Amino acid sequence: VGRIAYVNGRYLPQAQATVSIEDRGYQFGDGVYEVCEVRGGALIDEERHLARLERSLRELKMLAPLAPRALSRVLREVLARNKVRDGYVYAQVTRGVAPRDHAFPARAVRPSLVVTAKAIDPAKGAQQAAKGIKVISLPDIRWKRPDIKTINLLPNVLARQAAKEQGAYEAWLIDADGMVVEGAASNAWIVTPEKIIVTHQVDQSILQGVTRTTLLDLIAAKGYRLEERRFSLDEAKHAEEAFITGATTLVMPVVAIDDTTIGDGKPGALATSLRAQFHNFARATP
Amino acid sequence: VGRIAYVNGRYLPQAQATVSIEDRGYQFGDGVYEVCEVRGGALIDEERHLARLERSLRELKMLAPLAPRALSRVLREVLARNKVRDGYVYAQVTRGVAPRDHAFPARAVRPSLVVTAKAIDPAKGAQQAAKGIKVISLPDIRWKRPDIKTINLLPNVLARQAAKEQGAYEAWLIDADGMVVEGAASNAWIVTPEKIIVTHQVDQSILQGVTRTTLLDLIAAKGYRLEERRFSLDEAKHAEEAFITGATTLVMPVVAIDDTTIGDGKPGALATSLRAQFHNFARATP
Repeated sequence: VGRIAYVNGRYLPQAQATVSIEDRGYQFGDGVYEVCEVRGGALIDEERHLARLERSLRELKMLAPLAPRALSRVLREVLARNKVRDGYVYAQVTRGVAPRDHAFPARAVRPSLVVTAKAIDPAKGAQQAAKGIKVISLPDIRWKRPDIKTINLLPNVLARQAAKEQGAYEAWLIDADGMVVEGAASNAWIVTPEKIIVTHQVDQSILQGVTRTTLLDLIAAKGYRLEERRFSLDEAKHAEEAFITGATTLVMPVVAIDDTTIGDGKPGALATSLRAQFHNFARATP
Repeated sequence: VGRIAYVNGRYLPQAQATVSIEDRGYQFGDGVYEVCEVRGGALIDEERHLARLERSLRELKMLAPLAPRALSRVLREVLARNKVRDGYVYAQVTRGVAPRDHAFPARAVRPSLVVTAKAIDPAKGAQQAAKGIKVISLPDIRWKRPDIKTINLLPNVLARQAAKEQGAYEAWLIDADGMVVEGAASNAWIVTPEKIIVTHQVDQSILQGVTRTTLLDLIAAKGYRLEERRFSLDEAKHAEEAFITGATTLVMPVVAIDDTTIGDGKPGALATSLRAQFHNFARATP
């Protein structure tokens, strides 16, 4: 049974689902996206994902393809048609189809909307979290607005490929000052020897991860010590624990950065606990 | 009569020409492109465009969709089917179709190739060149590899849109030191009061324009004085002349940068002469 995708108002077999060669997403990467976790048939933190999508669209002066409620219904319909109970739903919006010209289309065009879903066995992530992952460090060569979740993802593609070739799961991107900005597709965190949880503050250099935001709720509710600030690669390598967050990785312990073992080389106790508690604080909407 | 596009081996009405929603060009901007001028039915500097395309593919570890000769034939077939004698031909190559994952597809997939053509009346460019254009200056917020001609063009899109909104033709991108890097879709040049032609040296911060390269041939052959070096926005505003180069703009005089008039506000003599001589030095292949 093939997967079903939503494309501009129609539900189609994914293998035959297409967009115009003049879609600005294809010619310029002129679009944005969201990946939302699905767990037990419910969307996780949907409201925050839709709010971030709206922000991305606003930052790029793009129109919304559907009202939030209608989009919500499409997400659920795609999940239902693909019988996805655990996994994720992916929504991509581009500025639409127009004759090739860098500037926005002179006449307003309808934005394109593509939605797909994928089932993932939650046991896979749990197994990975029990072992922990390795990350590598790479210079951050991205544009200066990674706070917008755009499909201009080529630097991220190259970073993830480099990580994969080095047997790592993720690449941490390092700025000119030697500071860890974030992962190529996740936010970066450490726990200091003083048990302080540290992650980069929200500004234009990082994507404000939804999982990051919900984890901050958890951290505040539990009274864990937290600092939102930059931290260097060197500080990270001497940290007691390290982990990454993302909508599909959730809280994933890091046990090695480049060739440096973190802590005792096993997933940290705090990271493991945060992962276990995460869904008590995330909002699930069926 | 509608236009015809080439898409992965087939010639299709452009309005119905599509690619998969899982084409990596659509989901990641994981692709490159070339725009080649067409003049009197001949391709201009085709060899240099194909060489640059090969370089772009190599830099991103992408495969070529066709051997250079076969690609050459496709470009000409698209021109013929669209009856384009003057205008341009556009070729876009992406890494191909694969289930969404940042890292390259585990198994090699066939790269996607899209080719389109567009007729443009050469009189339009001539009229624009006779008047000259305005450019605005903007911070360069692009990634650190603009030397690769990728379809991750969102910063360029935003810059060209800003230019358009301010009644300008192009945006010059300024680095952190106040130096002019290049235009959003062209190379940037000035002529100093000492009649020295200046343009940014070739390095990873600029795209090595084919029109730029051919213009350097012309400049060398004519014995004009040239410096390949960085120049500041301030130096540009005090230049005797300024101009941009690109495959479809050719040599286009700049008469204003932001609110500063360049020279006497009319196209410079040298820029106008370079434009007039350009095609004597470019290579036309029917």
